[in-house]
Amino acid sequence: MDYRKESLKKHAEWRGKIEVVPRVEVDSREKLSLAYTPGVAEPCLAIRDDPEKSFTLTRRWNTVPVITDGTAILGLGDIGPEAGMPVMEGKCALFKAFGGVDAIPLCIRSKDTDEIVRTIELLAGSFGGINLEDIAAPRCFEIERRLKEDLDIPVFHDDQHGTAIVVSAALLNAAKLVGKEVSALNVVINGAGAAGISIAKFLLNLGVGDIIICDRKGIVTEETAANDAQRGIAALTNQRGCSGLLFDAMKGADVFIGVSGPNCVTKEMVRSMAEGAIVFACANPVPEISREDALEAGAAVVGTGSSEKPNQINNVLVFPGIFRGALDVRAKDITFEMMLAASRAIASCVSDAELSRDYILPYAYDMKAHKAVAEAVAEAARRAL
Amino acid sequence: MDYRKESLKKHAEWRGKIEVVPRVEVDSREKLSLAYTPGVAEPCLAIRDDPEKSFTLTRRWNTVPVITDGTAILGLGDIGPEAGMPVMEGKCALFKAFGGVDAIPLCIRSKDTDEIVRTIELLAGSFGGINLEDIAAPRCFEIERRLKEDLDIPVFHDDQHGTAIVVSAALLNAAKLVGKEVSALNVVINGAGAAGISIAKFLLNLGVGDIIICDRKGIVTEETAANDAQRGIAALTNQRGCSGLLFDAMKGADVFIGVSGPNCVTKEMVRSMAEGAIVFACANPVPEISREDALEAGAAVVGTGSSEKPNQINNVLVFPGIFRGALDVRAKDITFEMMLAASRAIASCVSDAELSRDYILPYAYDMKAHKAVAEAVAEAARRAL
Repeated sequence: MDYRKESLKKHAEWRGKIEVVPRVEVDSREKLSLAYTPGVAEPCLAIRDDPEKSFTLTRRWNTVPVITDGTAILGLGDIGPEAGMPVMEGKCALFKAFGGVDAIPLCIRSKDTDEIVRTIELLAGSFGGINLEDIAAPRCFEIERRLKEDLDIPVFHDDQHGTAIVVSAALLNAAKLVGKEVSALNVVINGAGAAGISIAKFLLNLGVGDIIICDRKGIVTEETAANDAQRGIAALTNQRGCSGLLFDAMKGADVFIGVSGPNCVTKEMVRSMAEGAIVFACANPVPEISREDALEAGAAVVGTGSSEKPNQINNVLVFPGIFRGALDVRAKDITFEMMLAASRAIASCVSDAELSRDYILPYAYDMKAHKAVAEAVAEAARRAL
Repeated sequence: MDYRKESLKKHAEWRGKIEVVPRVEVDSREKLSLAYTPGVAEPCLAIRDDPEKSFTLTRRWNTVPVITDGTAILGLGDIGPEAGMPVMEGKCALFKAFGGVDAIPLCIRSKDTDEIVRTIELLAGSFGGINLEDIAAPRCFEIERRLKEDLDIPVFHDDQHGTAIVVSAALLNAAKLVGKEVSALNVVINGAGAAGISIAKFLLNLGVGDIIICDRKGIVTEETAANDAQRGIAALTNQRGCSGLLFDAMKGADVFIGVSGPNCVTKEMVRSMAEGAIVFACANPVPEISREDALEAGAAVVGTGSSEKPNQINNVLVFPGIFRGALDVRAKDITFEMMLAASRAIASCVSDAELSRDYILPYAYDMKAHKAVAEAVAEAARRAL
């Protein structure tokens, strides 16, 4: 099936992938008096006296906006706030289907960091958590950092952390499959934006051997870094001091992780990797190298971002459970421990008996996995309280 | 039943009066590929090329935020943004139940006009229209005016216009009942905030005889007006140049409309009104004078804001149909003609045979009325295109 053509047709039919429905009946005078005036005055006054009660007397406890500025939509780039909405809406549908979270798609018509932060802060009283989405780097780092500092509800930039969590889960299982220790892995990440930098940080925390991070211009070093975020990660990676292009970085690497753009990896480059090479080509909708080409070039395990191929590496596995867990325990933040718990929970959904080169991750629609993530995240949050 | 006590209990049980649900299935690889990646890239690109397509390829066409700053919640005043949310949520439930509109409750943590306007403008690409709610006067006038100027989607401050529309509908029928021409009515409005001023403007447009508008300090004149909005309406009303208190204004009046506070009208004041007096005591949750007292004092027709009494004058009858009609024809504004059409449609839902002192308006949960409003509004909008 040509998913893109068919999807356009379907979207025109659906006219929206989510809707808002009442949870109360209002079809009589009595019911209206309870759900609306005059009865509603009482919960209002209760929240006035104790704003924390907004988490028990309204839907706030379960409501999360999926917010974008439209600047980094899928791999399509800066296509504008309204154009990002089909992705935001889709994500909201997934939030409810897999996490039971009431998610609301919002786009912001601004690319100004201060203005985006301020807008979200002004609205935060409406929500139990904030999911940032498809906001371009490096702006996204500062936006997330400031919101995490200022708000007492969980803030999560899915493109950074959702991606890092699911990539790490995939890597944990792939490493097991090829019989390598995580601590011995040499990893090349292509893409030094939100996802690439976050994956690098996460893998460093996981204790991988070494990481080289590349962008369009090649290996990112402290000298070539385009911004503070790149400089920061360059200082922590590339212990061997390699320089050159992606082509050079990949020689002898155990793992390639692509969060960049289409067709930037050749078969030759995969052939130059170490024995038992792991290739995660996550660019969407077109990967860095096709699954077929990577396998032909000798990769032991291949994952992509596509739902049409085995080993889809997609943060769908992450965000519903992350928020479900965080909201359930009214966590005020999403910590590294909670993210690590999510990653390990995803990996553990594939048993040793099931684990194969075509099955390193649970399917995106595997409810068992979503529940496991939610429970692990809630447990990690509880431990920190 | 003690609605307020019972309502608090119910709110704690409900934990939210609305929720967000998917309209698409996502429980297989194929379905995910259509609703999410990779398929979703295509509607995104279609909207990038033509942002107007956000009205056909996403839920934008049917989505309206119910936005407050928490400064004028019911008759409770400035109780804070979060404390306003039970009202916003209730309104969202009514929006869907009576108008099929997907409404989202949002509160803004700011009382600054510029900041509120900017926040809403930045989010406008997410919505098909904007419903402003319980924002204090005079700030609400400027906020609405600026948003109407700047945005190409309908903007509606319900406390002003919803109230004016339903009060006017009630007045049309009440005047018929007592056998008076609208053009001959002397009207006293108590409350010179958002609702009072908007009702005055609306009734002037309807051609009522004369209006006196009062606030806590008595009759509002150009000299005593507290702000530009009051000065503007004072210049257009009180043709006889009355001064004094509400007590003085009500002598000989045909109609009293209260959008103020509890218990500020006495039986004596109602007794001083003209024969066939019409008393609309709309303050919530406690009216300006109880229905029983007003009837005892000789009022011919009494309406209140309460759902527990006959003749509830409540904008529930207005906002679902106003937005349903406006959204259905993709109106870019809500004009006086559309509002007048809504008012007449509501009034016409009570036939001459049904019309009585205890039945001047359809019930709030009368679906026939909501449909009539939607159709009348859509028709009025179409005529203007």
